Amino acid sequence: MSTVSLLTDKDLSPAAAAVFADIRATRKTDFVNNFWRALAHDPVLLARTWQSAKQVMAPGALDAKTKELVYIAVSVAQGCDYCVASHTAAARAKGMSEAEYMELVGVIGMAAETNRLALALQVPVDEAFQAV
Amino acid sequence: MSTVSLLTDKDLSPAAAAVFADIRATRKTDFVNNFWRALAHDPVLLARTWQSAKQVMAPGALDAKTKELVYIAVSVAQGCDYCVASHTAAARAKGMSEAEYMELVGVIGMAAETNRLALALQVPVDEAFQAV
Amino acid sequence: MSTVSLLTDKDLSPAAAAVFADIRATRKTDFVNNFWRALAHDPVLLARTWQSAKQVMAPGALDAKTKELVYIAVSVAQGCDYCVASHTAAARAKGMSEAEYMELVGVIGMAAETNRLALALQVPVDEAFQAV
Amino acid sequence: MSTVSLLTDKDLSPAAAAVFADIRATRKTDFVNNFWRALAHDPVLLARTWQSAKQVMAPGALDAKTKELVYIAVSVAQGCDYCVASHTAAARAKGMSEAEYMELVGVIGMAAETNRLALALQVPVDEAFQAV
Amino acid sequence: MSTVSLLTDKDLSPAAAAVFADIRATRKTDFVNNFWRALAHDPVLLARTWQSAKQVMAPGALDAKTKELVYIAVSVAQGCDYCVASHTAAARAKGMSEAEYMELVGVIGMAAETNRLALALQVPVDEAFQAV
Amino acid sequence: MSTVSLLTDKDLSPAAAAVFADIRATRKTDFVNNFWRALAHDPVLLARTWQSAKQVMAPGALDAKTKELVYIAVSVAQGCDYCVASHTAAARAKGMSEAEYMELVGVIGMAAETNRLALALQVPVDEAFQAV
Repeated sequence: MSTVSLLTDKDLSPAAAAVFADIRATRKTDFVNNFWRALAHDPVLLARTWQSAKQVMAPGALDAKTKELVYIAVSVAQGCDYCVASHTAAARAKGMSEAEYMELVGVIGMAAETNRLALALQVPVDEAFQAV
Repeated sequence: MSTVSLLTDKDLSPAAAAVFADIRATRKTDFVNNFWRALAHDPVLLARTWQSAKQVMAPGALDAKTKELVYIAVSVAQGCDYCVASHTAAARAKGMSEAEYMELVGVIGMAAETNRLALALQVPVDEAFQAV
Repeated sequence: MSTVSLLTDKDLSPAAAAVFADIRATRKTDFVNNFWRALAHDPVLLARTWQSAKQVMAPGALDAKTKELVYIAVSVAQGCDYCVASHTAAARAKGMSEAEYMELVGVIGMAAETNRLALALQVPVDEAFQAV
Repeated sequence: MSTVSLLTDKDLSPAAAAVFADIRATRKTDFVNNFWRALAHDPVLLARTWQSAKQVMAPGALDAKTKELVYIAVSVAQGCDYCVASHTAAARAKGMSEAEYMELVGVIGMAAETNRLALALQVPVDEAFQAV
Repeated sequence: MSTVSLLTDKDLSPAAAAVFADIRATRKTDFVNNFWRALAHDPVLLARTWQSAKQVMAPGALDAKTKELVYIAVSVAQGCDYCVASHTAAARAKGMSEAEYMELVGVIGMAAETNRLALALQVPVDEAFQAV
Repeated sequence: MSTVSLLTDKDLSPAAAAVFADIRATRKTDFVNNFWRALAHDPVLLARTWQSAKQVMAPGALDAKTKELVYIAVSVAQGCDYCVASHTAAARAKGMSEAEYMELVGVIGMAAETNRLALALQVPVDEAFQAV
């Protein structure tokens, strides 16, 4: 149960409606997921978050699919169920294969494990990794 | 300061020495970083962790560089300084450009933000994301 | 599904019942939420947690509403759904407006993002911030 | 040791220099802290992050000091040393007293504890907290 | 809703079926829980994870029950609902009493609190704790 | 660098001095570690935290060493360097052997890995684990 209502299209302020229109135009689909419907209570926060997401997730030096893999990794590592579900769907929509997905899951698990080993043992950073 | 000493090559048990030899052969370098020197106190843990890392990080459906990007993402999201330093170095060694790196950092930051927004608002998962 | 049963009033030990009575007297309501009903299996833990909460959340240098905003922030950042739901309700009961709430959510999201940027880049603390 | 160099003013691209100028004008100080000097390697990321921070942290429904208290709480809960140091300094600069600070620390600790108790016991959310 | 289907016994590849057979033989029960049914989509990941779990959780210097207590602690501290539920059940199956369980929960909560206090105050490690 | 000064014995308020005296009497040592010297700025927070720690960490259904193992696990999983260092020292002082320590580290790592696998795959809790 969300802490605010999920706004339907007819509940939107004009500023929020404009963001929804851009989401639909950018994604080429009428579907707007719940995340934006909750944020729409604050049109400034909605607009800023959407503009950032649109910019950050667009293909650049990294392609769009790779960015979604990273997004899934962060979502898992921070424990956000909603984000795991939505970005796993997004990664699949952008071409992630099931073999790629299961390998991704394996890397995330491995990284989580060695993170905790390094933290437990308080391993100091090697000079070789301090090149800057 | 680590919680256990960092073993030098001459301190190693035969079982740990065998793992170090494989690390060197696999990576084609004499350098063995501190993480393994701390783990070497427990040769079984050392061997298991290295075998897993070798298997998981080898190119497969995902290439080795992409796997390092994911590793960095998890390390940042879980707050492991050692892992961030070592895997940023590893990703660069595997060809990550500075443009790719800064985009990666941007995606990690964005994902962290939307994770917390979704959690704060307790957004329910859309049916469209529940395809299984 | 909780890992222990949620105790009803008639299941309580005398020690737990005394804590429930104080919760009701302090909060001026008969309602005792599930958190305390689970803790009630261990009257010592229940009493200690309630005494601490009563002391910590009382108005002092910071007012009660501000303390609830901080509580929400921690709960979101640590990923506790129960705590997010219960303390968002508590903050509203103590006067948090919807405008304040959405701004709070925005600050939490922004902090989460810059946290991860600083961690990814391993930014060293400026001398100016080391005044002690 | 940061993963990228900290750019001095003379290293900045024109786009990054423009952001630094706005940071200085907005904050009314010549001092630009390390966080921005690391981000400056990616002027787009730098500009977006600064614009967001400027907007989010400005007084609104919540005053600037309260926002810094929330920022500290998130930074502690996510374990970002840099952010804890810099935002504790910022909160003091915006008027946080030592009494307020120690109470804040106490609330953060208490919230962390009850978060984990609720998660351990898997306490289900009360209907009374599901008002939306 | 899981991101992959939960495989029934008849859906398993021969490699996955072999792992399931070993899980059943090792645990002396026909029941195989959902975690393994999701992992079974990747028999290599399944086999590696099961072999590690079998090795790590076997009695050694620490007994099996103590290892489950530690497992619960990590699962709570990282916010994994599935893991909390499954390892609390496992710990009870290995003899954890309700008194031990509630004390465990109290220690986890206390540790979470003092963790955040130490992080908030950025307490430097005492020389006495740097014996290595 | 801590965010508050570390109080020496002669800086203490009478209330804080009384807590320090009890720490020394309980632990049978003159040494008081930095954590308490930072908390001492707020004698109420200091007293409450110490009373809780004294109660929670005393032998009960679980022995004192097992409680320290759990404390280490939480500290690692939450990424608190100070807590890892201080409680690893405490566990050793209470009899944790090096073999026990390395096994503990292995369990923590394994738990971290399977936590993330379960979260990534969004595995639903088995009915068998919902006995309450």
